[in-house]
Amino acid sequence: MEEQFLTANYLLQVDNLTIEDIYLIFSQAKFFLDNYKQGIKFDHLKGLTIALAFFEPSTRTRLSFELAVKRLSGEAFSFSSSTSSLSKGESLIDTLRTIEAMGVQMYVIRHNCSGVPLFIQKNTNGIVINAGDGKHEHPTQALLDNFTLYQHFGKFDGLKVSIIGDILHSRVARSNILMLKKLGAEVKLCGPGTLLPRNINPWGLEFIDNIDDAVDWSDVIILLRLQHERMESGIIPSIREYSKYYGLKLNQFCRKPEIIIMHPGPVNYGVELEYEISSYPNVLIQTQVTHGVFVRMSLLALLAKNLNKN
Amino acid sequence: MEEQFLTANYLLQVDNLTIEDIYLIFSQAKFFLDNYKQGIKFDHLKGLTIALAFFEPSTRTRLSFELAVKRLSGEAFSFSSSTSSLSKGESLIDTLRTIEAMGVQMYVIRHNCSGVPLFIQKNTNGIVINAGDGKHEHPTQALLDNFTLYQHFGKFDGLKVSIIGDILHSRVARSNILMLKKLGAEVKLCGPGTLLPRNINPWGLEFIDNIDDAVDWSDVIILLRLQHERMESGIIPSIREYSKYYGLKLNQFCRKPEIIIMHPGPVNYGVELEYEISSYPNVLIQTQVTHGVFVRMSLLALLAKNLNKN
Amino acid sequence: MEEQFLTANYLLQVDNLTIEDIYLIFSQAKFFLDNYKQGIKFDHLKGLTIALAFFEPSTRTRLSFELAVKRLSGEAFSFSSSTSSLSKGESLIDTLRTIEAMGVQMYVIRHNCSGVPLFIQKNTNGIVINAGDGKHEHPTQALLDNFTLYQHFGKFDGLKVSIIGDILHSRVARSNILMLKKLGAEVKLCGPGTLLPRNINPWGLEFIDNIDDAVDWSDVIILLRLQHERMESGIIPSIREYSKYYGLKLNQFCRKPEIIIMHPGPVNYGVELEYEISSYPNVLIQTQVTHGVFVRMSLLALLAKNLNKN
Repeated sequence: MEEQFLTANYLLQVDNLTIEDIYLIFSQAKFFLDNYKQGIKFDHLKGLTIALAFFEPSTRTRLSFELAVKRLSGEAFSFSSSTSSLSKGESLIDTLRTIEAMGVQMYVIRHNCSGVPLFIQKNTNGIVINAGDGKHEHPTQALLDNFTLYQHFGKFDGLKVSIIGDILHSRVARSNILMLKKLGAEVKLCGPGTLLPRNINPWGLEFIDNIDDAVDWSDVIILLRLQHERMESGIIPSIREYSKYYGLKLNQFCRKPEIIIMHPGPVNYGVELEYEISSYPNVLIQTQVTHGVFVRMSLLALLAKNLNKN
Repeated sequence: MEEQFLTANYLLQVDNLTIEDIYLIFSQAKFFLDNYKQGIKFDHLKGLTIALAFFEPSTRTRLSFELAVKRLSGEAFSFSSSTSSLSKGESLIDTLRTIEAMGVQMYVIRHNCSGVPLFIQKNTNGIVINAGDGKHEHPTQALLDNFTLYQHFGKFDGLKVSIIGDILHSRVARSNILMLKKLGAEVKLCGPGTLLPRNINPWGLEFIDNIDDAVDWSDVIILLRLQHERMESGIIPSIREYSKYYGLKLNQFCRKPEIIIMHPGPVNYGVELEYEISSYPNVLIQTQVTHGVFVRMSLLALLAKNLNKN
Repeated sequence: MEEQFLTANYLLQVDNLTIEDIYLIFSQAKFFLDNYKQGIKFDHLKGLTIALAFFEPSTRTRLSFELAVKRLSGEAFSFSSSTSSLSKGESLIDTLRTIEAMGVQMYVIRHNCSGVPLFIQKNTNGIVINAGDGKHEHPTQALLDNFTLYQHFGKFDGLKVSIIGDILHSRVARSNILMLKKLGAEVKLCGPGTLLPRNINPWGLEFIDNIDDAVDWSDVIILLRLQHERMESGIIPSIREYSKYYGLKLNQFCRKPEIIIMHPGPVNYGVELEYEISSYPNVLIQTQVTHGVFVRMSLLALLAKNLNKN
């Protein structure tokens, strides 16, 4: 493995990665998954300082990156909007340049404006990882979801994946669609008409009417979190109706007990998923979280390796 | 020492520990106290991530645990209620399960609801340490207070300890009463009638009327902090009156200069204790703080040792 | 170098340092600057816990100290006013004594009241570093600014330095004036009359009327940040007028392209400095930031060496 390098020097969106890049990340993630245990620390980020710049609330992605950095002996350096005045793009760049002048070489960035990670990557010399930007992309979520599928199925060819929920506003959906298609899976979309890209469907994907049909067709269902703002905005008639047509209930799940269920979390139980289902072994929500740390370790380690090569 | 293990696999309340457990913790704490010095790091928590989940404000307990984790080469992982929506018990468990899925194996928990650490211990596989829950218990405070007494007196047999103040609402009092009795000390209580467990006295302890009598009878006085909410709630007539009957003044202290004074901190000077007294050598408030770090190092190290044994 | 020690055991203000102390700090900073690279960690603070107590907002100084501590293998321990009730001097001391009882030996302190670091140094046994106190001093900023000049010019003798802006309220100006004079540079001041120490000029320095004359006379210009409170208080007529007479414009800069420009940051572009100038190689703002980490590493390492000697 030590001879292989990523072609990518940053990760802003899924199309920064070649198919070979993705499998290289999976392979390194598998190595960490198999070899990490209590008492072990890896050295891949030793002496490197990584800024975790989360300009939007996050528990799970932030913690996952923080643990990934520490397990590779890097220094995580947390940075939030509340500690500085970052209202204008110009001052954001100034702040990042200051951090860069102190010797920080990698940035993990979450921001509620699409394109901020790209803007930063164009204006600094550091390595930028997009940890979710607006409604654009969340590429490390796609990496961990696809790694979880690869661990389970061993292949993507012919794999049937439905993504259910608010496709239109979801960066998780967008990144997963792009990566699943790149790796050869079949993808269909399901959700209320107001939350589907019906008029603009850049990916040419088919739609499924309701969750019953989705269960019948799919090997895998990825449920999306229904954001509270969507619940309250009138864009869907009611939570009850959403749950009835697009939430997964136990009786549907039991019709096809081998189906794989994923969710990026946190789950609104009773809306996207009945609570009882969550303890079944092929509901991989906890596994996704576990894999998230290893996939991010892999990505950080491989990007750092490029830094030394260059 | 390396052959001995705690019978306890978690610490929710004092009765989780046998007498042998307590002395084992003291012995390991003594080892750290004697051997810690600048430039030394111990490896007992190497590769372990410990979540410090403080859902209630805390300076000294949180810092004490944070230092303890770092001096044992563990990774402390701070987690507060402001970073996530933890209003319902169900979502608290979900959050903890997410943290667990990332590989966190120990949780130090403070919460203003009694029983939350127990609830978490029942619902996760991690090791739980109660760092104070509501009016229930604060077992690591009892450990550090009793360790401080053991360092000073070398024994508990026949030791006379008064606890003075708001016994009724104090988790510090409750945990100390249980541990002192378990180790063989004699305990009496002193405080305003409204703050004493007069009708329910599960421990069958005697009461002392005022601080003068307490000084006469005791080898040790543990002063409790008077909470501001108690000061303002009308449950005591006035601060001045409280201070007159239950606060320790210099003239009382000087009548018996060998008496040991402890306080869990932070002290309301002029209420529980006159400021002038604080610099006398047998006022052990700073020593308690110092011992707190070593006792918590000991507890963490011994619980982690069990983790490897299991 | 290993035979040399600082005469100072703390740093509250510039006059705590002898000229030899300053050059020793520069020499050690140069060593770190030349030898630090990715993958290297120094051991100078191994096993030491350093409290970073910032009671006033700060991004760059706080981050700079945090990185400095980590690169020397120390434990940084962040401490802010929001986590404790520190309204009175007495309780501030109590809090610091608690931290000290836990084994913290060094304190980096920023506070909006002049004299707080001194007060703490008088009342604890720890090593205190002033990271900016009110309108008094900011000695580590002066160290990094003077180190930057020393790196560039190799000497201070005959060096002509103008400091431009709000001299009256600036701790950066005060510390820089004292250190520059100590090291042998010539210093002149420039700014609006209301922001100059016209009636009290303890240093006997000359004034320059406007930035044109300052450019003509100087080898180096140190621009000060105009605080927003000054902009809004009516103490200056208008931002436009300030910028016209005391802000550096491109045409002025180009008249003397070898002149060195410094600014403690963050810059109000368009007020103190035209944005276009910032990318010229002899505008050393980013270099100051980079040097800041190394100068603070040097100071921390040398003070820790004294700790072991004592």
